[in-house]
Amino acid sequence: MSHFLMPTIDIYNLENYTFGTKDAQHEKDKSVPERLARMKDKYFKEGMRRSVDCILLVHQHGHPHILLLQIGNNQKGFFKLPGGRCRPGESEADCIKRKLTKRLAPPNAKEYQPDWEVGECVSVWYRPNFETLFYPYTPPHITKPKECKKLYVIPLPEKCMFAVPRNFHFLAVPLFELYDNSKRYGPIISSIPQVLSHFNFNQL
Amino acid sequence: MSHFLMPTIDIYNLENYTFGTKDAQHEKDKSVPERLARMKDKYFKEGMRRSVDCILLVHQHGHPHILLLQIGNNQKGFFKLPGGRCRPGESEADCIKRKLTKRLAPPNAKEYQPDWEVGECVSVWYRPNFETLFYPYTPPHITKPKECKKLYVIPLPEKCMFAVPRNFHFLAVPLFELYDNSKRYGPIISSIPQVLSHFNFNQL
Repeated sequence: MSHFLMPTIDIYNLENYTFGTKDAQHEKDKSVPERLARMKDKYFKEGMRRSVDCILLVHQHGHPHILLLQIGNNQKGFFKLPGGRCRPGESEADCIKRKLTKRLAPPNAKEYQPDWEVGECVSVWYRPNFETLFYPYTPPHITKPKECKKLYVIPLPEKCMFAVPRNFHFLAVPLFELYDNSKRYGPIISSIPQVLSHFNFNQL
Repeated sequence: MSHFLMPTIDIYNLENYTFGTKDAQHEKDKSVPERLARMKDKYFKEGMRRSVDCILLVHQHGHPHILLLQIGNNQKGFFKLPGGRCRPGESEADCIKRKLTKRLAPPNAKEYQPDWEVGECVSVWYRPNFETLFYPYTPPHITKPKECKKLYVIPLPEKCMFAVPRNFHFLAVPLFELYDNSKRYGPIISSIPQVLSHFNFNQL
């Protein structure tokens, strides 16, 4: 198969990584309406919200997997990518490093902290209104989207140590499980297989 | 909105382009089973089928549209991107130019023939078996996919003339119509909005 025109990403076996736990990190808001109200308030102060989501890849059984956070300790918790809101003036790369360190780095072991690398932006989603819906384009007649969310590939080092807040699960989910499964993972995460499909994964 | 990190594609108004017709170009096969049988036969002679599909973009009413072929002259005809099978040893770029010229260029007006440019490969799909299903990855336990289909962006010139075979419609379909509409457009075409979302469209 000719991959010579496809950009290559090195990915490593899940077993290369060590997973520990750290103190719980709770959400700022207790409900979706509360979250949307805070977002609206911030929008009128700071303008369009910019956010970043991080795609961390590993392989297992010869197939690429994405590392996902699952909120809560049961099968019903919803899935999210590590990432979050950029501060006003903060670059996307700086925000990615800050968010990944806060969420996933071991807190008391500076020498084991991953040196996060920022790869390609592979998809961009817009929130047209103060609602939960996102679209992979600016819908017609929307001149001022309320949020722009960018998904970046974060190439992982060969080995590193993660520490996951106790109120989250951190799971390696195969691409074939995400594909066409917007019911379980939502439209953004379930289309990761498509937006990564032009990469050649070098499974090391 | 900061687009400085997003690659930009210039797209032009649909009205910039002229659409004419030319002789019908019929499919080689009369049915899906016949097509799959011919594919299987070729596979054992030539190995994995390589194919290319072309994403031609325009804008209308301030929103990006994709140019799609619709087979047959009624509302039920299925949609396809211009493109097709690469010959053994043929490069993808050469195949794209050959297929676009055959399908869409005016036959008797060499000076009006578009000089096709080949842009980025934005998604790659695999057909694991001699069946109609494609996936945006090689499914586990499939060591020899039967086809690899690559979708390329073809940046259009500012103006050009198309000639469409009489048995096809050629339609500009907005991204918002394709999105989440796999029922009508199939999984490959309906995920074009996602795989294009990291581009900034410069609507000229």
